[in-house]
Amino acid sequence: MALYRILEIYFHLRTKKRVEYKLHYLPGKKKIKNCCLTVLVVHDSDTEIPFLQGVNILMKVPALKDGSFTLAESIAILLYLARKFKTPDHWYPSDLQKRARVDEYLSWQHVNILWREICKNQLPLPPEKLESVTEELNIVLNQFEEKFLQDKPFIAGSEVSLADLVALVELMQPVGAGYDLFEERPKLAEWRRQVEEAVGKQLFQEAHEGILNAKSLTADKIILNHRLMPYSTKNSLHS
Amino acid sequence: MALYRILEIYFHLRTKKRVEYKLHYLPGKKKIKNCCLTVLVVHDSDTEIPFLQGVNILMKVPALKDGSFTLAESIAILLYLARKFKTPDHWYPSDLQKRARVDEYLSWQHVNILWREICKNQLPLPPEKLESVTEELNIVLNQFEEKFLQDKPFIAGSEVSLADLVALVELMQPVGAGYDLFEERPKLAEWRRQVEEAVGKQLFQEAHEGILNAKSLTADKIILNHRLMPYSTKNSLHS
Repeated sequence: MALYRILEIYFHLRTKKRVEYKLHYLPGKKKIKNCCLTVLVVHDSDTEIPFLQGVNILMKVPALKDGSFTLAESIAILLYLARKFKTPDHWYPSDLQKRARVDEYLSWQHVNILWREICKNQLPLPPEKLESVTEELNIVLNQFEEKFLQDKPFIAGSEVSLADLVALVELMQPVGAGYDLFEERPKLAEWRRQVEEAVGKQLFQEAHEGILNAKSLTADKIILNHRLMPYSTKNSLHS
Repeated sequence: MALYRILEIYFHLRTKKRVEYKLHYLPGKKKIKNCCLTVLVVHDSDTEIPFLQGVNILMKVPALKDGSFTLAESIAILLYLARKFKTPDHWYPSDLQKRARVDEYLSWQHVNILWREICKNQLPLPPEKLESVTEELNIVLNQFEEKFLQDKPFIAGSEVSLADLVALVELMQPVGAGYDLFEERPKLAEWRRQVEEAVGKQLFQEAHEGILNAKSLTADKIILNHRLMPYSTKNSLHS
């Protein structure tokens, strides 16, 4: 009996390099939790890439292939993985109201906090335009703090969820572009620290090293200089 | 023992008239199914309205209040209602892959098929601009047909789901603005016919009469000239 499954998740990095990501799953909680994280690194680009024919007719990444089943859209992929591999409940809580909080954020972020939308898809952003877009971003960040975080450690309450992961990945984009939005926002910085801790600092660093520069703007100032590789290779997730 | 619950759903119509929508639920399948539909009419506007203070800190509609619990974002509200009232499975299928299809569309539509986004929020759209935006809309409609509908009757397969409802409500916006996008798209028109049928033609008409003009562009050419009223008043959903 096969004890693991293989999914293919297609994405590419800022370098536009084609990456075929093969994840090997075992039904261990820790490993499954890490699987969810791994998907987040596909968030970086949605440029058309020809080899996607047969995986996503829209020719965009991220895209998932699980046997003959294919799926687009990063949020749908995350939810699919959370359900399929029965990730720990806090990622997508079964509690009605907590789950609604996650859904609420995942809907809102599509047209609000999305860095690419704020930049009007003019990425990579020319340095002279950075200042003008930060004003719009700050309005959105105020809403994020007041509406979604409030005085809770995480968006859904006392535990980290997919909403926090999606939010933090998006908020790391401006950091990579040179605007450290956490610097003057203690509430946001504390939230980031707690999400990093819940995720695991090393894994967080690995997921974001593609967008972070040599200054290393991560909370704990760790600099890892190896290149992004298939997750399974570095972490021995396969059986 | 109370056999029904009362929710308040805040929205307003094109007339900018404040409407407080009180829905009375009974655990009957047909009535619960109809509840989901009722929420869709809130999709029309997100203008700030002061009385929302205490319901949605972002001061936008739609917003839901269920006891002390409040919720924003139309998609999150639909999912909340579907779960809370255990609507028939087809609205948000428990099947992993069908549910992923619904999630995939609900994610995609946020920044693609959204009529307001295509119009760059310049609504109501000046007549002279209608032609220029239809080109962009047609690209999106091609994607909708090829990626999401394919040769299936509905987005998730053989049964109607929340994805179809959300899609059709959005596609009725251009119709209300004078562009009948179904006219030259037989596949799309057939899908609309089937969604209307699954929903119920009269209910569909009631939900859209606010945006449809005197020519009545609904599939069955029914013209209802009464004003939109609280759903429970017209349909005796309360006990």
